Amino acid sequence: MLAEILTIGDELCRGEVVDTNSSWLAQALWELEVTVAWMSSCRDDRPDMERALRDATGRADLVVVSGGLGPTQDDLTVDVVAAMLGVAPVIHEPSRKLMEERFAAAKFRLTPNNLRQVEVPEGAFVLANPVGLAPGFEVSMSGTPVVCMPGVPRELKAIFTSAVKDRVVALRESRGERVQRIARRIYRTFGAGESHIATRLEGVGADSAGTSIHYQAKFPEVLVKLVIRDRDQSAAMERLESLDSEIRERLTPDLYGTDDDSLPAALGRALMNVGATMATAESCTGGMIGALITEVAGSSAYYLGGAVTYSNEEKKRQLGVSEATLVEHGAVSEACVVEMARGARDRVGVDYAVAVSGVAGPQGGTAEKPVGTVWVAVVGPRGSATKRLQWPGDRQRIRRLTAHWALRMILGALRDDSVDRAQDDPRAGQKASQTAERPGGAGAGAENE
Amino acid sequence: MLAEILTIGDELCRGEVVDTNSSWLAQALWELEVTVAWMSSCRDDRPDMERALRDATGRADLVVVSGGLGPTQDDLTVDVVAAMLGVAPVIHEPSRKLMEERFAAAKFRLTPNNLRQVEVPEGAFVLANPVGLAPGFEVSMSGTPVVCMPGVPRELKAIFTSAVKDRVVALRESRGERVQRIARRIYRTFGAGESHIATRLEGVGADSAGTSIHYQAKFPEVLVKLVIRDRDQSAAMERLESLDSEIRERLTPDLYGTDDDSLPAALGRALMNVGATMATAESCTGGMIGALITEVAGSSAYYLGGAVTYSNEEKKRQLGVSEATLVEHGAVSEACVVEMARGARDRVGVDYAVAVSGVAGPQGGTAEKPVGTVWVAVVGPRGSATKRLQWPGDRQRIRRLTAHWALRMILGALRDDSVDRAQDDPRAGQKASQTAERPGGAGAGAENE
Repeated sequence: MLAEILTIGDELCRGEVVDTNSSWLAQALWELEVTVAWMSSCRDDRPDMERALRDATGRADLVVVSGGLGPTQDDLTVDVVAAMLGVAPVIHEPSRKLMEERFAAAKFRLTPNNLRQVEVPEGAFVLANPVGLAPGFEVSMSGTPVVCMPGVPRELKAIFTSAVKDRVVALRESRGERVQRIARRIYRTFGAGESHIATRLEGVGADSAGTSIHYQAKFPEVLVKLVIRDRDQSAAMERLESLDSEIRERLTPDLYGTDDDSLPAALGRALMNVGATMATAESCTGGMIGALITEVAGSSAYYLGGAVTYSNEEKKRQLGVSEATLVEHGAVSEACVVEMARGARDRVGVDYAVAVSGVAGPQGGTAEKPVGTVWVAVVGPRGSATKRLQWPGDRQRIRRLTAHWALRMILGALRDDSVDRAQDDPRAGQKASQTAERPGGAGAGAENE
Repeated sequence: MLAEILTIGDELCRGEVVDTNSSWLAQALWELEVTVAWMSSCRDDRPDMERALRDATGRADLVVVSGGLGPTQDDLTVDVVAAMLGVAPVIHEPSRKLMEERFAAAKFRLTPNNLRQVEVPEGAFVLANPVGLAPGFEVSMSGTPVVCMPGVPRELKAIFTSAVKDRVVALRESRGERVQRIARRIYRTFGAGESHIATRLEGVGADSAGTSIHYQAKFPEVLVKLVIRDRDQSAAMERLESLDSEIRERLTPDLYGTDDDSLPAALGRALMNVGATMATAESCTGGMIGALITEVAGSSAYYLGGAVTYSNEEKKRQLGVSEATLVEHGAVSEACVVEMARGARDRVGVDYAVAVSGVAGPQGGTAEKPVGTVWVAVVGPRGSATKRLQWPGDRQRIRRLTAHWALRMILGALRDDSVDRAQDDPRAGQKASQTAERPGGAGAGAENE
C-alpha cells in the first residue's frame, strides 16, 4: 500500500512554516507498514488543490491530507473535495452541537464563519476531532481513499491516533494485505556515535523474523528503534520483551531511557531513587546544565542550584578555586573543574556536584587546548570522576554536548555508587545521603525524606 | 512563474528527517518573486523519482530539486535525470579535479564511489558547489528548467545563493516577465504580540507602490519583514531606507535588531558600547538566561557569571535574600527578585544584574500566584526596575519567555541610563562604569577597557 501525504497552506509554500505534519504522518504511516511514496504541499488555491488531489489519487493507494479546514475563506479543502465529488458541503450536526456547547461554555458568540469549520462533503465518513472544532473526514476519489484532517498539529495527531490508525489497518485488510501488528520501543542513548551503537547491537534479533532495528542520530543523542511485526499484538510485544534485556545490556552505559524519556528526566529519577541532591558549577555552558535539569517539573526536589562562573574571579569567589590552580593549569583543566565541583558540593551542601570548563570557541583555542576542549568533573559522596572531551563543531554544538555529558556523568556516578553501596552492605544503598562522606549540615537533602 | 520544489530521500518519506530544505527554498524563491505552487518529496526510487519529475515538469515552469547527489548507490538523481533525457552520466572534470585536490590535502584515498559525486547528466549546465564535493546542475526536461542540488543544507544554500539566484532572474527575464529587484529588511521584536505589532505599523508605506510588510510570530519573537520591489536595486534600497526610521520609531521599545541579529547579541553590543558588565540571578529559568547570554562568542567581555538559586536556601546563601522577605512575600515576589538582583550585582561586582523568580508549573500555582506568574528585576548603576509577568502556557514556554524578558529588561535599563547620562552631561554617557553608583572594586569591568 503506497500512500501520499498532501499538506495544504500558503504559509508552507512561502516557506514561513516548516512542514512538521508531513514527517509526523510519514513516521506514523511507516509504523503501520504503509509506505509513504510521495509527500506534497500546495497553496490554498482551488485549481492547485484540485491538481494536487488528482495527481495524488492517481499515483497512491491512500491519500492523507492536512490543512484547509479552518473557519476562513482561505480554507478550501471541504469546498474543493466536495466540488470534485459533485456533492455539496453540508454541516455535520454532531460537530455543530459540540461547537455550540463549547462556545456557550466559553461565552463566545458563534458567527456564520465558525460554522464553516463543521462542514464536510456530503456523504463523507466523519472522523471526530477529540481536541478541536473541525472534524476530519474520509471520502473516496476515483476509488482512492482520501483522509482529510485539520493542519493544527495537535488536532491532526489526535484525529490520526483516535480514528485514522484503525481505519488504515482496515483498508489494508480490505485490500487482502496480511496486516501485521507492531510492537516497538525506542532506546535512547547519549555518549556514543551512531555507527558505534549499531556495531554493539549487531546480530540482535537476527534469528527472529519480522524484527528490525533502526538507528537515528538526533543530536546530541542516538535513538535505537526496535520494531517487531507479528500477526498478533501480544505475540509481537512478547518477542519485544524477550529481546529487551540483551539490548539494554549491550547499550550500557550509553542507554538512559526509552520512548519519550529525556536525559534530564532520567537523571531526576535516578537522584530521587536514592534521595540525593545535586548542584552545578558551569563555565563554558553558562547555565545550560541547570536549564536542562530544571526542564523537568518537580526538579526542585533534587536540584538546589549552582554557580555560573564565566570569569576566573567568579570561579575563585563563588567556588573557591585557588589562584594557584588557575595560574598553573588554567581554567580549562582537570584541577580546575574538580575544585569547581568540590566548591559547589560543599557550599551548596549537596550529595553530587558537576562542573564544566572548556573552550567553546570560535576564539580562545591554543595548540594545547584547541577549540572544543572541555573538562567535566563530578564529585559525589564516594569520590570524583573527571573526563576530558574533545569535539569538533561550532560553539552551540560544543556547549550542548558538554551539558549532556555533565548530566550523563552524574548518572554514571549514581550508578557506580549504588553498585558500591550494594557491595558494602546489601541492606544499604537506598540513600547516598547516609554515607559518611556526605557534607555536614546539608539539610536540603533531608527535605526529600 | 510557478515553481515546484522536489526533495528526494527515503529518510524524508519515513519521517526521520523534517524537510527544512523545502521551506528554505520556498522562502528564497518567494523573495525572487517566484511563486512556489507545489512542494513534493519522494523516495530514492527510480520509478517514483521519474514519476515525481514528470508530474513536476508537467505542472510547473521551474523545478528545483534537492537530494540524491551523494556517493552511494542510493543516490540516483543523476542517473534518473540522465535516463529521462536519454543521455549518459559523465564526470564533470573541473569538479573531479577539485575533489582530487581536497582528498590529497586531507590524505584521503579516492574510491570509485566518490567519483559518482562529480557526475552530471551529459550536456547539463553545471552549478559549482562552493562548500562541498557534488556540483549542482541544470537541465531542461520537456521544456521546463530543472535545477538539481545536493540535499546537504549548507551546500544547497551555497549553490542556490551563488548560482541559482541569478539564473532564476535570467529565466524570468527570458520569459518576458518584468523582473523587479527586491530590497528587504527583517525587524526583530520581542515583547509584544503579532497583532499589536501590526497595529503599530498600520499605514507605513501605504502610499509607496511595491511596498509590503509581513508579520511572522517566531516564538518568542515577532518578526516584521519589510519588502520593497522596484525595477532597480538601488532605488528599492533607497525607498527601504526612507521608511526605516519611522518603522524603528514605531517598534520601540520592542525592536532589538534586524535581519540575523539575536537578542543576546544585541544585549552584548549594548553592554560593550558603554563598557558595562553584568551578572544573572536565576530561579525558575535554572540557568537559561546565562546560557542565552553566553551563546554569543566573546560574551566573557561583559558577562561575568551568576547564581542559579533554585532553593530558598541558595537565594539566601548566594545572594543574601533575607529570611524575612521569603517569609513575608515568598520567593516569587518583587521584594525577592530585587534582593536577588542587588545581591548578584554587589557580590559579582558588576554594573547590571538581572534576577527572575516565578512559578513555571505545572505544579506550584496558587490563587494569588497562578502558574505563569514571574517577577523580573534589573538593578543598575542608576536604580532598579521590576516587572510582573503573567502568561498562560506550558513550563518550557514560560521559562523561555521569562529568559527573554530578562534580556530585554537589561537592554531597557541600558537605554534609559544612556538617556539619563546624556541629560546629566552631554559629554558623558560612554561608560556606565563611570557613574558614581558603580560598585566599588569591581575589577572585572575594568578588564574590558
